[in-house]
Amino acid sequence: MAIIVTTAMSTQLFHHRVRVYWEDTDAGGVVFYANHLKYFERARTEWLRALGFSQSDLVRSDDVMFVVTHTEVAHQAPARLDDEIDISVEVKRLGGASITFVQQALRLATPTQAQTPVARGSITVGSVRASTFKPCRLPAPLRQAVEARLTLNP
Amino acid sequence: MAIIVTTAMSTQLFHHRVRVYWEDTDAGGVVFYANHLKYFERARTEWLRALGFSQSDLVRSDDVMFVVTHTEVAHQAPARLDDEIDISVEVKRLGGASITFVQQALRLATPTQAQTPVARGSITVGSVRASTFKPCRLPAPLRQAVEARLTLNP
Amino acid sequence: MAIIVTTAMSTQLFHHRVRVYWEDTDAGGVVFYANHLKYFERARTEWLRALGFSQSDLVRSDDVMFVVTHTEVAHQAPARLDDEIDISVEVKRLGGASITFVQQALRLATPTQAQTPVARGSITVGSVRASTFKPCRLPAPLRQAVEARLTLNP
Amino acid sequence: MAIIVTTAMSTQLFHHRVRVYWEDTDAGGVVFYANHLKYFERARTEWLRALGFSQSDLVRSDDVMFVVTHTEVAHQAPARLDDEIDISVEVKRLGGASITFVQQALRLATPTQAQTPVARGSITVGSVRASTFKPCRLPAPLRQAVEARLTLNP
Repeated sequence: MAIIVTTAMSTQLFHHRVRVYWEDTDAGGVVFYANHLKYFERARTEWLRALGFSQSDLVRSDDVMFVVTHTEVAHQAPARLDDEIDISVEVKRLGGASITFVQQALRLATPTQAQTPVARGSITVGSVRASTFKPCRLPAPLRQAVEARLTLNP
Repeated sequence: MAIIVTTAMSTQLFHHRVRVYWEDTDAGGVVFYANHLKYFERARTEWLRALGFSQSDLVRSDDVMFVVTHTEVAHQAPARLDDEIDISVEVKRLGGASITFVQQALRLATPTQAQTPVARGSITVGSVRASTFKPCRLPAPLRQAVEARLTLNP
Repeated sequence: MAIIVTTAMSTQLFHHRVRVYWEDTDAGGVVFYANHLKYFERARTEWLRALGFSQSDLVRSDDVMFVVTHTEVAHQAPARLDDEIDISVEVKRLGGASITFVQQALRLATPTQAQTPVARGSITVGSVRASTFKPCRLPAPLRQAVEARLTLNP
Repeated sequence: MAIIVTTAMSTQLFHHRVRVYWEDTDAGGVVFYANHLKYFERARTEWLRALGFSQSDLVRSDDVMFVVTHTEVAHQAPARLDDEIDISVEVKRLGGASITFVQQALRLATPTQAQTPVARGSITVGSVRASTFKPCRLPAPLRQAVEARLTLNP
């Protein structure tokens, strides 16, 4: 059964920090909007690693891969070369074969500019057989690890 | 006033064709999902060019640039190396300082596989002053060119 | 035996045209230098297709894949958003398990600027078994197709 | 006068560590070769930052930007998803308006695989006026900082 993570419940926020390099920017002088999806994914990958799971191991040992099935991103403010960005990871819905994350990119404060939200996204990934791309259930240990981190808010 | 393009009205669909190269794929063997946003943007750029507008000219002569403010993409099926993909461009909403597009990526039929929808997106771009990133009205000639292509369905 | 393509001999130049989009540029306002390697590869892919070979077919039917083993690129002038670039493909050396190409990126003339060389590269690709990444001989039909296009200059 | 850094002399090696994410890989299952140039650049950016220089500050306060004028990369072995890679930075030649770096990418050892060289490159960057792209001398403080780190080997 799918678990919808409401305000009454929450996963601990996971944070991953990235730095903006030339490769991330475009001729507008800012981070190319599609690259925020890359930042979001790096953070989800590190969140998974922090839970004890490596995606390359999951492919090899479980024939399981995650595919992104839906993304929605609101771009709030530009990020620029050399900016440091904090990316958060929060589970919003835990389905049988999918997870929906809410992720926030936040430009860190510097001596000359305040902390600023730069992008907010909702990303849904589905688990599939790596060999066939057919949907399959989330690996049970991963599901348990996520559930164990869902806490009822007081 | 914003014009919402309902089913009673429509812009002619614009089409742009792209080819999948190694650079577009990831280790899952398919097009990296964020790259569909690049395909969508190439198509919007060519749509604009077909209307008679070049974004580099708009920056230089009007100090106007477009920034992507919101994206939503549903990934429907994987695309792979060497696939040819048709990207459509349709205006869904014409605001004072923004345009919302609906775009469909369709893998073309080959001798061994039928035509398949691969991704569908809704992309909103806003016009800003290139020098300040402050929102500004859409250039009037562009707005008129888009309006002229909105046709009332019989 | 390796065939070194000297000035006494030449392959017909193959040309592929690309357009510069936002995704290709960086905050310097120009095409991010590493992206010229993408343009070069698109052109080699189309050269191969023009010879009658699809890389995805080669993987599936011959278990052969090409890996880039060496690249050298001289950046001559910046390319910018909306520029059209012609990429040439020329075989410089045909080895038993590798091909070395010389490739030139040329910004096409516009009403306001003359045609300009933007980047020149030497790219070596090796053929490997797709399943093991072990070097293997170039597929014979491909080798023959390339040799047939080497012509002795009068 | 240009300083050629011979074996009699050396800069301390600077190291920067990167992780391979999905965005970096291609359908061959390995890091897309052009992306090693991105890794190399991240490392040079952090080397510069460690010397006390930010490229965005150099643009703003000195109108100086670095452009890559020449790259040569030998690809030695594939890197894959989740690999950790150490990128080194070494100054090989310090010219009046350019710096040539030698950089090595090394896949770190894991429980199942030994440490392996993955790519070695020689990258030349030139300093230009950000506003005109005209070559200009390296900022004196940067030049001094690099020279101060060149040490005569005993």
